[in-house]
Amino acid sequence: MTAACAMSLDEVNAFLMREFPQMAIGKAFLVEDVGPMRARLRLLYSDRNVRPGGTISGPAMFALADVAMYVAVLAQIGPVALAVTTNLNINFLRKPPAADLIGECKLLKLGKRLAVAEVTIRTQGEDEAVAHATGTYSIPPR
Amino acid sequence: MTAACAMSLDEVNAFLMREFPQMAIGKAFLVEDVGPMRARLRLLYSDRNVRPGGTISGPAMFALADVAMYVAVLAQIGPVALAVTTNLNINFLRKPPAADLIGECKLLKLGKRLAVAEVTIRTQGEDEAVAHATGTYSIPPR
Amino acid sequence: MTAACAMSLDEVNAFLMREFPQMAIGKAFLVEDVGPMRARLRLLYSDRNVRPGGTISGPAMFALADVAMYVAVLAQIGPVALAVTTNLNINFLRKPPAADLIGECKLLKLGKRLAVAEVTIRTQGEDEAVAHATGTYSIPPR
Amino acid sequence: MTAACAMSLDEVNAFLMREFPQMAIGKAFLVEDVGPMRARLRLLYSDRNVRPGGTISGPAMFALADVAMYVAVLAQIGPVALAVTTNLNINFLRKPPAADLIGECKLLKLGKRLAVAEVTIRTQGEDEAVAHATGTYSIPPR
Repeated sequence: MTAACAMSLDEVNAFLMREFPQMAIGKAFLVEDVGPMRARLRLLYSDRNVRPGGTISGPAMFALADVAMYVAVLAQIGPVALAVTTNLNINFLRKPPAADLIGECKLLKLGKRLAVAEVTIRTQGEDEAVAHATGTYSIPPR
Repeated sequence: MTAACAMSLDEVNAFLMREFPQMAIGKAFLVEDVGPMRARLRLLYSDRNVRPGGTISGPAMFALADVAMYVAVLAQIGPVALAVTTNLNINFLRKPPAADLIGECKLLKLGKRLAVAEVTIRTQGEDEAVAHATGTYSIPPR
Repeated sequence: MTAACAMSLDEVNAFLMREFPQMAIGKAFLVEDVGPMRARLRLLYSDRNVRPGGTISGPAMFALADVAMYVAVLAQIGPVALAVTTNLNINFLRKPPAADLIGECKLLKLGKRLAVAEVTIRTQGEDEAVAHATGTYSIPPR
Repeated sequence: MTAACAMSLDEVNAFLMREFPQMAIGKAFLVEDVGPMRARLRLLYSDRNVRPGGTISGPAMFALADVAMYVAVLAQIGPVALAVTTNLNINFLRKPPAADLIGECKLLKLGKRLAVAEVTIRTQGEDEAVAHATGTYSIPPR
């Protein structure tokens, strides 16, 4: 279950840049770390993500949670087939200031057909979470 | 509870364009209808929303659900103060084809402090839902 | 997708009483109707479900939603194998009075591996929902 | 935010037994610990919670999550007024064996009007979670 990763950080980044150019890895998101049943991503602050008052938009935080879960699954099982988000539940806790956001993903379950994950989103350098998400991914037959 | 709307469709569109330029009303989203405890929005198909294979991205569908809920609350209570999303749960049901998406929002509850809504997302002209969301908005003291 | 049911109302009731005695069909729950992609259940009011003040408990409403989804899936695919709840999200909207509750379930998706459903819970004879749930069932390989 | 608790473990137990006899504190549930922004509860294994095959029912795990969140809020703010569950999302990860379950609750946010919490449910003595829940409580004006 918590076996070693199937892909290294470099392999994950190379795969995402090649297969998902629209994720804008290196521009909108950075994969900072992958490990057994976990991943850490950064959402780079930019004008595109911002709401009036300087806070980061809900859809941008949703995207960070979604991509973090995908990366955690990918690092664990490798690029065998596309895992698909089937459910994502997000709680918005505090208005984030104008700064990069860090999403820490932990896989709660990695089954043959489903993966369940949680993501805690914090402003870089802060302890308190600004948002928290849980989600389910469907893993295609291998 | 299901009283008449506080704002007309034209008033909603004018308010959103003035206060939320980043929502890109008229470019990314169109508010097609508002009524008692409901709203209907269109997500215009564009390259920005697309995933490989031509399907529309999860974050774009999340944004459609979120904006549809906000508009339904706004039309009902008027622009007295900013309602804030506190929770959004979305189920992705089918891969949408490359076409406009319609989000039909229904307010399940409009209380003094909280509004709860559901949104069914369909490809225009189709019966089957491609995604379904429920969410909670916190309504500031008036 | 919305094909005829695999089981009639009588067959569903007989199956549940035989296989799930702890569901207390006929005592705690009644299956009132099944149809294509839908089911309607009644939670019989009893002292066991009640909170101080006479309102029905959250876990009792959760159980009604969960059983209604299970019955809708069962009626559609038949008792080939046990579908298992993987996710359930419930919004509590109003305090229900001391009376029977009706849960109306609609299947939003019935795929090979996953079913997604929504349940609206109302007090019998009332229009407004007291709770609303969405959930996912994993369907074992057939 | 993470200030000292308003109530001790003994005070919480005495309050729940007096005000919520139907929670069956001491019979169905035990509050094992409360601390700043957290609580730990035990669901005592009993025939009432069991499904065919010996596993614990979904509604019983839902109730454990719901009560754990309520206790964490209560310990933090005291018995000033009744917090009410407005949303609960639960992911079922593994079938629990026939044994007591431990629910660890952590408050992600304790605002003036809303509290958001997560609960991880494990079989006693095990590391892997069998279920994970997040929920929102509405806190009445004080």
